[in-house]
Amino acid sequence: MYEELFEEILRSKKGVLGKFWEHTYLRLTHAYGGWPEGTVFLKDLAVSGFPKIGRINALVPGLKKQFASCSFWMEEKVDGYNVRIFHYQGKILCATRGGFICPFSTDRIMDLMSADIFNDYPTLVLCGEITGPENPYIEGPSPLVDEDIKLFIFDIAKLPTFEFLPQQQKQELLYRYGLPSVKNFGLFENRQEDFEKIKKILLNLHYEYREGVVFKEEPSGRRAKYVTANSDLNDIAVFSRKIMDISPNYFIDRMLRYVLFLIDMGIIEENGWEEKLGKAFVSSIKEVLNYLKENGKSSRLFRCRFRNPQNAQHFIDHLKHIPRHEEHIVVKGFFKDKEYWILEFEKIYPSTGDSLRNWLSGALRFD
Amino acid sequence: MYEELFEEILRSKKGVLGKFWEHTYLRLTHAYGGWPEGTVFLKDLAVSGFPKIGRINALVPGLKKQFASCSFWMEEKVDGYNVRIFHYQGKILCATRGGFICPFSTDRIMDLMSADIFNDYPTLVLCGEITGPENPYIEGPSPLVDEDIKLFIFDIAKLPTFEFLPQQQKQELLYRYGLPSVKNFGLFENRQEDFEKIKKILLNLHYEYREGVVFKEEPSGRRAKYVTANSDLNDIAVFSRKIMDISPNYFIDRMLRYVLFLIDMGIIEENGWEEKLGKAFVSSIKEVLNYLKENGKSSRLFRCRFRNPQNAQHFIDHLKHIPRHEEHIVVKGFFKDKEYWILEFEKIYPSTGDSLRNWLSGALRFD
Repeated sequence: MYEELFEEILRSKKGVLGKFWEHTYLRLTHAYGGWPEGTVFLKDLAVSGFPKIGRINALVPGLKKQFASCSFWMEEKVDGYNVRIFHYQGKILCATRGGFICPFSTDRIMDLMSADIFNDYPTLVLCGEITGPENPYIEGPSPLVDEDIKLFIFDIAKLPTFEFLPQQQKQELLYRYGLPSVKNFGLFENRQEDFEKIKKILLNLHYEYREGVVFKEEPSGRRAKYVTANSDLNDIAVFSRKIMDISPNYFIDRMLRYVLFLIDMGIIEENGWEEKLGKAFVSSIKEVLNYLKENGKSSRLFRCRFRNPQNAQHFIDHLKHIPRHEEHIVVKGFFKDKEYWILEFEKIYPSTGDSLRNWLSGALRFD
Repeated sequence: MYEELFEEILRSKKGVLGKFWEHTYLRLTHAYGGWPEGTVFLKDLAVSGFPKIGRINALVPGLKKQFASCSFWMEEKVDGYNVRIFHYQGKILCATRGGFICPFSTDRIMDLMSADIFNDYPTLVLCGEITGPENPYIEGPSPLVDEDIKLFIFDIAKLPTFEFLPQQQKQELLYRYGLPSVKNFGLFENRQEDFEKIKKILLNLHYEYREGVVFKEEPSGRRAKYVTANSDLNDIAVFSRKIMDISPNYFIDRMLRYVLFLIDMGIIEENGWEEKLGKAFVSSIKEVLNYLKENGKSSRLFRCRFRNPQNAQHFIDHLKHIPRHEEHIVVKGFFKDKEYWILEFEKIYPSTGDSLRNWLSGALRFD
């Protein structure tokens, strides 16, 4: 039924075809006919793109403004990559934010959760974050996972509308099926007393280098995210390793948020924040330069585990289709280690490497 | 004779007309017919745009590569704004880098230098930097000037070709006419001994928060600039006051150069550089936020002195014609103080003020 749309969407350049095993699918690279970017169309199933969540950069004014009248839930926001997990023709598939059917996540999903829920509710979509040191997308430390990867579910949506279940119904299902989920910090009200509790939780998350929280109001569906300064700091340190392959606004935004969080929490005057910010840049740039001297390039090594070796091949093909990843992926190793196939690959950051190599060679630069 | 070109240039959108007193002139906003951007055409005189000087970001490799065979001069690079000073119809006019006849610089030029040289050599163009706490363009401290402004000449060019005089001839003229000039550190060769001397000078400039140096080879005309880490740091602190009105690349570039300079000088492992970099951002962002709370906007106050009050009016008109300055200049005061007319005006940084005000109000942001 959706196949009929394919040609029209492709002609309008709002979507791109993909293939995963026997499935041909179309993912929306731009909103189309009411479907948001990231929507996945299979032959007879449409999984809507995950809606963007706005950010507040000032905690109390943000909560007062966004959740003026009602109470709201606060859940942990985990720093990983977003997956929509759904049942299709007897299999569980995982779509990333961009609407790719991810060969890695799909390969490993049965290690991360039980699929029982889909036996009883085949039209549900579980929305979660995958994180861990052996994930193939997100760089940097993952304070919640020591090895390999883990899944943290934060939403359950119902097909065909992709309407989110209310918090309590979601919690019930997560509990009943023993599904791994993000931490829920409870229900809060728009009042000073609760703001203080929220701040205390955020400060703890901050000191544990965890990313932050998402606030969710019901039944309005209003949502807002808010992240910790140490999460911004971590992003800055990690992304400085590829400083010229990243939009420079990425850094400016995070520096501003860093300061605003510290002000929000009343800890800006404590010692050490300036040094930490400077260190995030300086240490990473020094690392980049040292790595460049030794290796002649700027890159980072990734390692992840697969169950089915063919999925690893699908995955490499997939990476090469991600915008700006083309030609910058180099497979370094692929071998069996006990029950897993280990894929090691390198992502090359061409602008960072090329520019710095050029500078270090003594080239003239006109800016 | 150049007037005939005006219409053609205007039609091709490579230039813009300007007016200063009785003079109508055309300034090139893009290169045109062999003339570089910033060229000023008066009715019967053309003053070529000042050529861009490339930057080296690694000192010794840069010197080795750029000045491979010959000796080269090293002069101080002063952090101010570039002026070309020339004689036209009995008056001395000053053009800025962009090719504006600057009402401020022209008004004050006779305070900054003697015009005798133009009596003897009316077709010379003096190229210099104007800096000081009361200059209307450049923000931030000026380590070389305590009050008002000063001029530092670094080149003398000959019309009509705008060919630079050789260093010795330039030095002679500067000396003979008692003209203020940048510091000349002497002639160096491409050898380790000289690199060490150069480093020592640069380290001293760095510790005095001075901008850096320009290397000039003769007769090839090759040039290269190199700036100190503390100059980058100063730029970062100053420009963070208008962080969202500035290309974010401005900051990324300076952070990279900051680290590269410290490595070049062998002082990266000394203490405090991380903290200083972090402080440059954090302190400025805190200042912006405090200023915003008190004043409801982000802006900076400028003050400069004029001899002729009409030039101040011309100057305000001029500022409003500078790209991205339109509507963001507010005159705050204009009064006579002894022999000067004092102009006080405010430059408003609209993106910084508007964005941060919006964030602080608790607005949702989708990034």
